[in-house]
Amino acid sequence: MSIVTIERKVLEKNDELASRNRELFQHHGTFVLNIVSSPGSGKTSILERTLEHLKGNLRVAVIEGDVQTDFDAQRVAKFGVPVVQIVTNGGCHLDAKLVQDALGNIDLNGIQLLIIENVGNLVCPANYDLGEHSKVVVASTTEGDDKPLKYPAMFRNASVLLVNKIDLLPYVNCNITELKNNALRINPALNVFETSCTTQQGIDVWCTWLESQLKNYPLINE
Amino acid sequence: MSIVTIERKVLEKNDELASRNRELFQHHGTFVLNIVSSPGSGKTSILERTLEHLKGNLRVAVIEGDVQTDFDAQRVAKFGVPVVQIVTNGGCHLDAKLVQDALGNIDLNGIQLLIIENVGNLVCPANYDLGEHSKVVVASTTEGDDKPLKYPAMFRNASVLLVNKIDLLPYVNCNITELKNNALRINPALNVFETSCTTQQGIDVWCTWLESQLKNYPLINE
Repeated sequence: MSIVTIERKVLEKNDELASRNRELFQHHGTFVLNIVSSPGSGKTSILERTLEHLKGNLRVAVIEGDVQTDFDAQRVAKFGVPVVQIVTNGGCHLDAKLVQDALGNIDLNGIQLLIIENVGNLVCPANYDLGEHSKVVVASTTEGDDKPLKYPAMFRNASVLLVNKIDLLPYVNCNITELKNNALRINPALNVFETSCTTQQGIDVWCTWLESQLKNYPLINE
Repeated sequence: MSIVTIERKVLEKNDELASRNRELFQHHGTFVLNIVSSPGSGKTSILERTLEHLKGNLRVAVIEGDVQTDFDAQRVAKFGVPVVQIVTNGGCHLDAKLVQDALGNIDLNGIQLLIIENVGNLVCPANYDLGEHSKVVVASTTEGDDKPLKYPAMFRNASVLLVNKIDLLPYVNCNITELKNNALRINPALNVFETSCTTQQGIDVWCTWLESQLKNYPLINE
């Protein structure tokens, strides 16, 4: 029973720090996305295509979360945006404290969009609020159409679903209608987009939507 | 600091129960695999192809672990083997206690091979010994070739790597030699097999190796 108590305390403490992060974001007028998914579903590729698309339109910064390596930060740095790598050293999720520490290395002044790429894990990051405004879950077609039902918490807590790798649909056993229906059954409020980072299909629709969301977000500094 | 202590206690308690599970397996002469991977890498499909291949040669039982749903147990039950579903209800890994409870519903007498399919998660299940003799990590080509470096603990603790979905290699950005080299850099003792559940390629080589391993395992009951 004590373990449950500790676990609740950990989450309460995290929520408190997440609120502080959120206040900081509001203060700077920075809109924040938390991108979550299984390992290898294409989070970093989507980030790359998104940065490419938004270039010149928006001032963006990135926090990369990985269990090990700074490969993803290296990939993102090529786009000339401020990027901080968090290495969790075996930790299975980012938490609000890790993000708070990372924020010490980013000047949020004038940053309109902060994208946090979480550790590849479809379970644990679902419970940890980082202070973000929106959780974006990426599900690739290669993972099959049953994942929303098998890992419901992540799809329930997200506000956006990117169905990625749609270029592979002819080669994999995945019914995309079924995948979307399963996700919407868990969370009818999900905004669903279909993307491919290989063919670029759907990237413009996703980015246009993202830009429209940002227009609705009160930019205190402007 | 108290959280770290609790965490260590949790793992110590788990290791103790895992030892008890292992003793039970030895007593019955049952060889046990713990299959781990990201969500959607093809664990259940590999299990299906393996059961198909071993049919008539070996007496097999299965424990299915999922965050939600009993879809996988339903798929496996079609092969006429004893199967127990563990639903973790949000839990991110199987532990030795859950397996112990599941074993209450399986008669291990005469079972030569027990296959435990873990929750889809490339991070947390790495730390939880279930009492198995061998951890089998499945990495699909669609996840990219960098995953062993980004999620090293799982590849370090496994004794077998199945590189799955090799039929998709022409369509994805994955260098299979690089993937295998990355895995072997983390764990040079890994037994590596290439498989495709769609084309059946490599399934026979994997199953032949598995059968040969079982021959080396002392079957107390025979």
